[in-house]
Amino acid sequence: MLLHLATWQEVENYLKISSGIIIPIGSTEQHGPTGLIGTDAICAEAIAKGVSENHQVMVAPTINVGMALHHTAFPGTISLRPSTLIQVIIDYLTCLTEAGFTRYYFINGHGGNIATLKAAFSETYYHLSHLKVPQAAQVRCQVGNWFMCRSVYQKAKELYGDQEGSHATPSEVAVTQYVYPESIKNAFLSPDVASGYAIYGAEDFRVHYPDGRMGSNPALATPEHGKELYDLAVKELGESYLKFLAGD
Amino acid sequence: MLLHLATWQEVENYLKISSGIIIPIGSTEQHGPTGLIGTDAICAEAIAKGVSENHQVMVAPTINVGMALHHTAFPGTISLRPSTLIQVIIDYLTCLTEAGFTRYYFINGHGGNIATLKAAFSETYYHLSHLKVPQAAQVRCQVGNWFMCRSVYQKAKELYGDQEGSHATPSEVAVTQYVYPESIKNAFLSPDVASGYAIYGAEDFRVHYPDGRMGSNPALATPEHGKELYDLAVKELGESYLKFLAGD
Amino acid sequence: MLLHLATWQEVENYLKISSGIIIPIGSTEQHGPTGLIGTDAICAEAIAKGVSENHQVMVAPTINVGMALHHTAFPGTISLRPSTLIQVIIDYLTCLTEAGFTRYYFINGHGGNIATLKAAFSETYYHLSHLKVPQAAQVRCQVGNWFMCRSVYQKAKELYGDQEGSHATPSEVAVTQYVYPESIKNAFLSPDVASGYAIYGAEDFRVHYPDGRMGSNPALATPEHGKELYDLAVKELGESYLKFLAGD
Amino acid sequence: MLLHLATWQEVENYLKISSGIIIPIGSTEQHGPTGLIGTDAICAEAIAKGVSENHQVMVAPTINVGMALHHTAFPGTISLRPSTLIQVIIDYLTCLTEAGFTRYYFINGHGGNIATLKAAFSETYYHLSHLKVPQAAQVRCQVGNWFMCRSVYQKAKELYGDQEGSHATPSEVAVTQYVYPESIKNAFLSPDVASGYAIYGAEDFRVHYPDGRMGSNPALATPEHGKELYDLAVKELGESYLKFLAGD
Amino acid sequence: MLLHLATWQEVENYLKISSGIIIPIGSTEQHGPTGLIGTDAICAEAIAKGVSENHQVMVAPTINVGMALHHTAFPGTISLRPSTLIQVIIDYLTCLTEAGFTRYYFINGHGGNIATLKAAFSETYYHLSHLKVPQAAQVRCQVGNWFMCRSVYQKAKELYGDQEGSHATPSEVAVTQYVYPESIKNAFLSPDVASGYAIYGAEDFRVHYPDGRMGSNPALATPEHGKELYDLAVKELGESYLKFLAGD
Amino acid sequence: MLLHLATWQEVENYLKISSGIIIPIGSTEQHGPTGLIGTDAICAEAIAKGVSENHQVMVAPTINVGMALHHTAFPGTISLRPSTLIQVIIDYLTCLTEAGFTRYYFINGHGGNIATLKAAFSETYYHLSHLKVPQAAQVRCQVGNWFMCRSVYQKAKELYGDQEGSHATPSEVAVTQYVYPESIKNAFLSPDVASGYAIYGAEDFRVHYPDGRMGSNPALATPEHGKELYDLAVKELGESYLKFLAGD
Repeated sequence: MLLHLATWQEVENYLKISSGIIIPIGSTEQHGPTGLIGTDAICAEAIAKGVSENHQVMVAPTINVGMALHHTAFPGTISLRPSTLIQVIIDYLTCLTEAGFTRYYFINGHGGNIATLKAAFSETYYHLSHLKVPQAAQVRCQVGNWFMCRSVYQKAKELYGDQEGSHATPSEVAVTQYVYPESIKNAFLSPDVASGYAIYGAEDFRVHYPDGRMGSNPALATPEHGKELYDLAVKELGESYLKFLAGD
Repeated sequence: MLLHLATWQEVENYLKISSGIIIPIGSTEQHGPTGLIGTDAICAEAIAKGVSENHQVMVAPTINVGMALHHTAFPGTISLRPSTLIQVIIDYLTCLTEAGFTRYYFINGHGGNIATLKAAFSETYYHLSHLKVPQAAQVRCQVGNWFMCRSVYQKAKELYGDQEGSHATPSEVAVTQYVYPESIKNAFLSPDVASGYAIYGAEDFRVHYPDGRMGSNPALATPEHGKELYDLAVKELGESYLKFLAGD
Repeated sequence: MLLHLATWQEVENYLKISSGIIIPIGSTEQHGPTGLIGTDAICAEAIAKGVSENHQVMVAPTINVGMALHHTAFPGTISLRPSTLIQVIIDYLTCLTEAGFTRYYFINGHGGNIATLKAAFSETYYHLSHLKVPQAAQVRCQVGNWFMCRSVYQKAKELYGDQEGSHATPSEVAVTQYVYPESIKNAFLSPDVASGYAIYGAEDFRVHYPDGRMGSNPALATPEHGKELYDLAVKELGESYLKFLAGD
Repeated sequence: MLLHLATWQEVENYLKISSGIIIPIGSTEQHGPTGLIGTDAICAEAIAKGVSENHQVMVAPTINVGMALHHTAFPGTISLRPSTLIQVIIDYLTCLTEAGFTRYYFINGHGGNIATLKAAFSETYYHLSHLKVPQAAQVRCQVGNWFMCRSVYQKAKELYGDQEGSHATPSEVAVTQYVYPESIKNAFLSPDVASGYAIYGAEDFRVHYPDGRMGSNPALATPEHGKELYDLAVKELGESYLKFLAGD
Repeated sequence: MLLHLATWQEVENYLKISSGIIIPIGSTEQHGPTGLIGTDAICAEAIAKGVSENHQVMVAPTINVGMALHHTAFPGTISLRPSTLIQVIIDYLTCLTEAGFTRYYFINGHGGNIATLKAAFSETYYHLSHLKVPQAAQVRCQVGNWFMCRSVYQKAKELYGDQEGSHATPSEVAVTQYVYPESIKNAFLSPDVASGYAIYGAEDFRVHYPDGRMGSNPALATPEHGKELYDLAVKELGESYLKFLAGD
Repeated sequence: MLLHLATWQEVENYLKISSGIIIPIGSTEQHGPTGLIGTDAICAEAIAKGVSENHQVMVAPTINVGMALHHTAFPGTISLRPSTLIQVIIDYLTCLTEAGFTRYYFINGHGGNIATLKAAFSETYYHLSHLKVPQAAQVRCQVGNWFMCRSVYQKAKELYGDQEGSHATPSEVAVTQYVYPESIKNAFLSPDVASGYAIYGAEDFRVHYPDGRMGSNPALATPEHGKELYDLAVKELGESYLKFLAGD
């Protein structure tokens, strides 16, 4: 039920049964000395596929570059400006709504996307309400952040305590280790890791977080943890999706 | 210390002492049958002035139209699109940064502004980093939501319990009653008030929240409560501002 | 009849009687050594309220930051780019037109806004004509510049002659003194004041008008003059508004 | 000295002597039953060439589509939105300024362009001030409206009195007859011609001005008048250009 | 049948017979030491007029500034950004489609315009499909590049062989010599002319093509060749236009 | 050497050796009754990875939604507007250029992307030249269309002759069968398949190409063909990339 691996006639048939679709969104940004640059997209995509398998939901291609401007002082980071990402979301949802979709569930792997996604949803509702698209008034969007699932959060606390941190966390690194065990990285991780500074511009971020981590110890991650966290996220977001779809 | 009531030479002198400024931001949107359309701007502006008086901070003119697209099915609501508001913020902060300001503290009266403000801050840092403005790298923005202050929140719970709700709340109505006692409104308030529906487009919002309130009973508000809530917000946001300004 | 102090149900009732609204627009810009940065917004807002009281017209919140890019070399000035202001106007008028308003009368306090407002009106008519808004074809906008009222102009000439100048004028300073008597400023005003140079970019402006005045002697202003000028503007713009509203 | 008929090396040589250039701007819009759709561009271009010949000024290609949204209910009208025209002006002046030009004199044939041009100039100065273009601070723009030249205005009054009107005027038609004598049109012109209505949206305009004229009697035009008006405009705008170029 | 020399009533009559229009588009860019800066616009306009005369087609005013950013390191070049040109095309075609035109045939004189034109056509179809314009679904656009006509190409090869090159070609210079025999230029042309480098940014272009030519020897051009090439282009594009118009 | 599977420190090291990167770009659009909606992204991504393995090139995450507006009348298609895609490309290349990359090689799977990509490159060079990015002048972009490789083209002709067609071709379907053998689809394919109509708007496209194919017979595709075509594309584009990187 991946849109990319379906034909248009299969989509047409799917729309007879459901108007819901999951859109994974991640980021392409530094994740510390051992975290993969694609961490957020990898996690969001893998979990979205898991939900899709459990609940026969269509999954759109992953938006793998999101809003990561504050990480752009580290090489390898690619970010859209918020105003670009808003236009991207409008374009996606206009096409899909004209085809008959009306329920958009974004499985999100990056905290930095949340604000822009919410802004984009508001602008999309408004934009669609002015077009000649009949089902515009039925359109609804929701963000499901896998790392903020209650069950995931509890498990991460249990496994890592204070060393979970808030960026390049062992929990997200663990999920990528589970998905790409051949890409587990080793690098020196200073035992002193910065934390607690607010996020402003990119230069300022790198000054305060010189190796890219925010209070985390990703060395604690294991692929087995990743499997556990993945399973929890798939279960909880699957339930959340069904509830969203059933919403009056 | 209101920018509007200062001369440019007074601003020049102020900049020798401080590079911080408070920007109140509200909204122009329905607030139920008895709430003022300007509630969010009124609260933000009043509290910003209170902080200014206590701490000699410059206060910019209030942004009184924000992001309220979901309220536009009620007459009187005016909203910017998120992409417009982002450009407005960029324009404000570019002008002010070229003049020497670098610390922007937004006192916000509307939950619906938060996402777009955060997106706008990211885009502004990035935008400024590409201009010929020397102090661009020092620019920092923060949002202080008066209604989310811990002390305000506790007082509202104490005064109103579950009847605080989440829009057209007695606490915000109370602050406007304190500021504009001559504009206290009376209207029929159905004892059955909707709550718990997620926010999507404007039409959908009005279907679910037909009189505009979200789970609130604004009839509980009094000007005296408003004074108490105002005092708490001024105190807590004043401390928050000083901490922001002192941040390394 | 201030939108900010009304409820949405009061707006709904107002729309049964009238589809007209006044939108005050000013600027946040230097006004010489003794003029308030908010001069243009203060004057526009005060006069709009006066017209409202006389004629029971709804008044929208003041647009207090306008098009003042040429003043941005002086600290304290905040300006929108013309292209941003056009989007702001489109957003305002789309919301208000969807609610049922069709006659927009802008009471303007700043010459620099006129060109962009006119451009914005054209773009708004065109924009609305393409939306699904039934009353789009009825929409009309007009600018009423209080400082260009015939009666105001004559009074200013009578009071100040050549010393009226064209920016930081005694007449606008007088109106702010009438509105904010506690904010009357004193500062050295060079008897030699530049005048007659055309306006180009911001740096060029400051080179030619080093203290921000353009040919004016604001030291002549008094609160009593302000009261007289205010009364004339309220009367003339009130008549102009009624004529606009009645236009076929 | 037409840019279109020059080589880049001739432009390079010209820039050693002068940094001034004339940019004719017209419109493509209805001009009543006998006026050419290109009237405004034809007049602006012809007069610009006349000034060029007298004073060896470089003339850029004519911007022949301007801001004429209010005429778009008549077939044949083409208009840019103001926000598009602003971007066009920014693009033109950025290219020319990078090449060394700094003085832009727009010879304009259409009243409807004036507001957007002024807005565009402001935005261009601001835009250029943020680029890496060394001569940005020297950039200056001016509009010369041929139909508002004092000498032209007086001659038109003398020739046509009240029948000059304000759109599809005999004076502009006369200039096109002088330039394109083979394209003089004949059509029925109702002796009753509307005048005095304000300009709002396109539909409203056509309702009030059903044949496109605004208070004018273009049947009075002759090619001989056109020659006289042309000569006056070329003379007066030539002097205006020289004064602009010499401005400190 | 030039739109500029028609009245709106003539356009109205034309639309009863045909919904097709030709839009010439050129560029304002360096064409080597002897080529006119307006070469591409001159050729496109002349050929469009030729087609118009043969087939009674309406011709819109020439878009004489196109997409020539890669030539902007040479003085005299003016270019729109692609995103600006897209908006310009949307504006043109929205106005013309609302009037009843549906078939847009662009006679193009500049290779650098092709990509942006194609992008603009896609965006215009999409834009129009969302407006309240009834004939939006019938809109079709096509580019006819005169220099890529089979007959023109063969003639150029026959006349100039390898010395045709790909910019500032003898064939385009020849057409301008035919149209403007009084503007034939002489300048030193190095026998060594660069060719074969790909086109990237403007600075890079000038480094590799120091006099602006790309592998061409425009000294071979004659007005007589220009006449031959012009005749071939008019014939072939005329046939192409008729085929386009007749397309199902 | 996939950016998504690298750490930022690995990218930093890579940049010491090379400033080149491959960016795969596809589309999310109907590909007839048996072609996968993700066909263009799947092919581009697979071939990019192949080139990466052979030549140790960094590969950015795939842009899997491109410019496919003409396919949007078929459900499942998602497209960016060209003006959105231009902003996306600018954002990508600004981030990467600030990090030190300068050579961008796009491996493209969709003909409909080419025009917008070219426009985006021009706009990006111009945009970067105005920023404070030192290496802006070195930036170069190139598109490598795998389906237009000479070797691929010849093989496709050899395998499929006229039945290759131009959309939903057996060659692209074959590559997806090789990459995703578990997703080979079967569906009725009418022996009569439309071809030869030009592409305009989305509705018009579906009228002329009712099942989405353009002159192709994808039933001829086999995974073995896919392997052959993949190998040819990897080889030819690898050589093309090396040549691009070595370009002076």
